Amino acid sequence: MSAPRMRVAVWGDSRAGINFALRLEMAGHTIEKLEDPAQLDRFDALILAATARELEGAVGDVEKHVRPKQIVIHTSLLAGVEALDELETRGCLTIAAAPLGDSYAVGTLDEVADTVIGLLLSEIHQTAETVPEAQRAERAARLYYAEMLGELSAWAALKAGIIEDFMGSSFDLDADDIIDAYPAAVELGMARNYRDVARMVGEKKNMEELELWAVRKEAPWPSNS
Amino acid sequence: MSAPRMRVAVWGDSRAGINFALRLEMAGHTIEKLEDPAQLDRFDALILAATARELEGAVGDVEKHVRPKQIVIHTSLLAGVEALDELETRGCLTIAAAPLGDSYAVGTLDEVADTVIGLLLSEIHQTAETVPEAQRAERAARLYYAEMLGELSAWAALKAGIIEDFMGSSFDLDADDIIDAYPAAVELGMARNYRDVARMVGEKKNMEELELWAVRKEAPWPSNS
Repeated sequence: MSAPRMRVAVWGDSRAGINFALRLEMAGHTIEKLEDPAQLDRFDALILAATARELEGAVGDVEKHVRPKQIVIHTSLLAGVEALDELETRGCLTIAAAPLGDSYAVGTLDEVADTVIGLLLSEIHQTAETVPEAQRAERAARLYYAEMLGELSAWAALKAGIIEDFMGSSFDLDADDIIDAYPAAVELGMARNYRDVARMVGEKKNMEELELWAVRKEAPWPSNS
Repeated sequence: MSAPRMRVAVWGDSRAGINFALRLEMAGHTIEKLEDPAQLDRFDALILAATARELEGAVGDVEKHVRPKQIVIHTSLLAGVEALDELETRGCLTIAAAPLGDSYAVGTLDEVADTVIGLLLSEIHQTAETVPEAQRAERAARLYYAEMLGELSAWAALKAGIIEDFMGSSFDLDADDIIDAYPAAVELGMARNYRDVARMVGEKKNMEELELWAVRKEAPWPSNS
């Protein structure tokens, strides 16, 4: 018996969300960029490819169009499944599933949702890890820091002639999630390094918003911080 | 027929030199830390485990004690084989062999030395790459930058729970070679990132000299640069 294939809509363009959708597509599901939320009834599931900051808006965009039993997944590590409460009260099966290195940080409200996301993750060869709301920011700060360094490191190794290509190492770096995780980096005592690394990544990948944020944050004069 | 095993003396404690010696030891050679250069006659070969900055002093330490045909290898990427000229005039087989990612940057003065280092490198599963004098500084800046980022990246991935251990990724980072390669980093337009990364590595690995250098270099007030 083969697993049921789903029609999955994607709303938004966060790197983490798009990447999750692409992985599901490789596993055989049908993925479609949603042009208009009014078309949502054609789909079994919806991925909200939104950063934490965009999530409330994205929920607002779709809430009049979802239907009961529809699976809705958001992929920002900085937000829990609670960010989808408006959709849950409309009967949706709500799930938070954010990439976390070699696993996914998962948040659900019931066992059915738990089972669904567990199956989907196993299809893309990933495991689920439960990350409590209170630990999400810290995990995000550490993860984004590591991913930014991984990216810089791969670039530098390429330039130094140590490696010949990126060997598939590409990261789901969303500028505003990186920026919004900064307070947790401050608490972990890694504020300055986090900013410096963000500046370098912003520079290297032409993520202007990120570069400008980092440059402004690191200015030593207090009136500009 | 098994390859001849050598008695190898090590003078100095640069990371690159010690690492090269340890690899030769794993390949079956006898390695000994040289306590007194006067004992050099007991050895077939000598590794000068010195950074570029220490090299002149190290050559001075041993020059009265080397003998003709003795193999002398230095391992700093920032210096060519010419740094060993004083020993070459005493009849030594002089070789520069510096780790360069997955190969060794090699400099020699004749074919015999070329053959010797080629054999030694093949015993430790490395290949030789000829790096002309004029390109050494640039290669060094790029390499040290990549290795520093590799180190930071591995630490961050460990802290983020992405990897469970270092998986053998350890780098031959010598503070003063990193510092001395800085002018080439400036020319490559990577001055600021190089300093920032050096500061982070200095901090993380308790390499105080490196951290202080980077902090002082990056100070924005010109009178202190």
